[in-house]
Amino acid sequence: MNCETNETTNRVPEAVIRRLPKYLNYLRELEREGELKISSFKMSCDLELNASQIRRDLSYFGGFGQQGYGYTVSKLRQEIENILGINEQHTMVIAGAGNIGQALMLYPSFKAQGYEIRAAFDISPERVGKSYGGVEVFHMSKLRDYIRENEIEIGVIAAPKESAQTIANEMIEAGVRGIWNYAPTDVRSEAKVAIENVHLNDGLYVLTYKMKENLGE
Amino acid sequence: MNCETNETTNRVPEAVIRRLPKYLNYLRELEREGELKISSFKMSCDLELNASQIRRDLSYFGGFGQQGYGYTVSKLRQEIENILGINEQHTMVIAGAGNIGQALMLYPSFKAQGYEIRAAFDISPERVGKSYGGVEVFHMSKLRDYIRENEIEIGVIAAPKESAQTIANEMIEAGVRGIWNYAPTDVRSEAKVAIENVHLNDGLYVLTYKMKENLGE
Repeated sequence: MNCETNETTNRVPEAVIRRLPKYLNYLRELEREGELKISSFKMSCDLELNASQIRRDLSYFGGFGQQGYGYTVSKLRQEIENILGINEQHTMVIAGAGNIGQALMLYPSFKAQGYEIRAAFDISPERVGKSYGGVEVFHMSKLRDYIRENEIEIGVIAAPKESAQTIANEMIEAGVRGIWNYAPTDVRSEAKVAIENVHLNDGLYVLTYKMKENLGE
Repeated sequence: MNCETNETTNRVPEAVIRRLPKYLNYLRELEREGELKISSFKMSCDLELNASQIRRDLSYFGGFGQQGYGYTVSKLRQEIENILGINEQHTMVIAGAGNIGQALMLYPSFKAQGYEIRAAFDISPERVGKSYGGVEVFHMSKLRDYIRENEIEIGVIAAPKESAQTIANEMIEAGVRGIWNYAPTDVRSEAKVAIENVHLNDGLYVLTYKMKENLGE
């Protein structure tokens, strides 16, 4: 852990970035319901966020709202999609074709959003050669070459915790620009690569907090 | 969507709650590394959050820091665990024993944190009667009675999107206090029940944003 990167870059706070998918899901729902405009006040109620925080968040990206008028739903939705790079095509591979790997291969909405899983890799002879949701499983020894030859952008780790860091290192060496890690241990790198370590427990912690709150504890 | 709940309650903003697991994971790591004290400045660097925001977040829960001294790592970790209810025992059932359901049953760190999956439910004859990670799969028709008789607190939905809302309604009727929904569609309820709809795509959006940023786009 070090602090240096923060001082030299002038980037949008990660907390803001993490709220964008929430805005996006909300705006998509409004659009499905036929809403054309949305005020930061209404957004603030529905999303349980401060209205001034919402305006501040969106202003990081140029601020698309108008005083006393609000935001145009479809425009704001498109802008957030552009910011997040959702309208672009992204290629992924998955290392580990066990339960989590299979669940990800079969998950319907990645491809719909431009995220294409091109191949999976595993060491188990039972899984190598199989396909899940149209994605073929190759032997893990081919991971590096596959990433290099196909210029894969994103490596997903769905392997046991013991091999997660080794796989991450291989993926980074082979040239991925991002790692999405589902193994129950964090992976790290000094390289200029984006890493998202998924903590399944976190959602559960938030859920139980809300449960306690409902009881007035 | 309505705004009324917000006006009558005086609760901690959801954005603050969502940052607590992040603080917790970080503090646990510091503890493993043998750190005794932590300043909000150092936390702010490592977590890429504003130091004043961290102090404000923690002050919602009584503010355990001391000016010019910082926080005691183990104490702050314990306080956050207490706030989130992590030191308590929680019971769960899973509806849907497909890939996601199995992955959750086999995930190592729920039980270690006090979250016990007591049973799973499915409609497929191939899965009913099997066990995954010591969790038995029963027929879905027994879901309601099982929740009632065992006073299950949390219902996890890992079923296809078409049946997610029906299952949520059954779980709520049977008395769960929280729903953790992995189906690729949101579930809702007017009842006083905590709901966490998981959006797997969200982490991927944040990852691709960071990737773009690394390229200086």
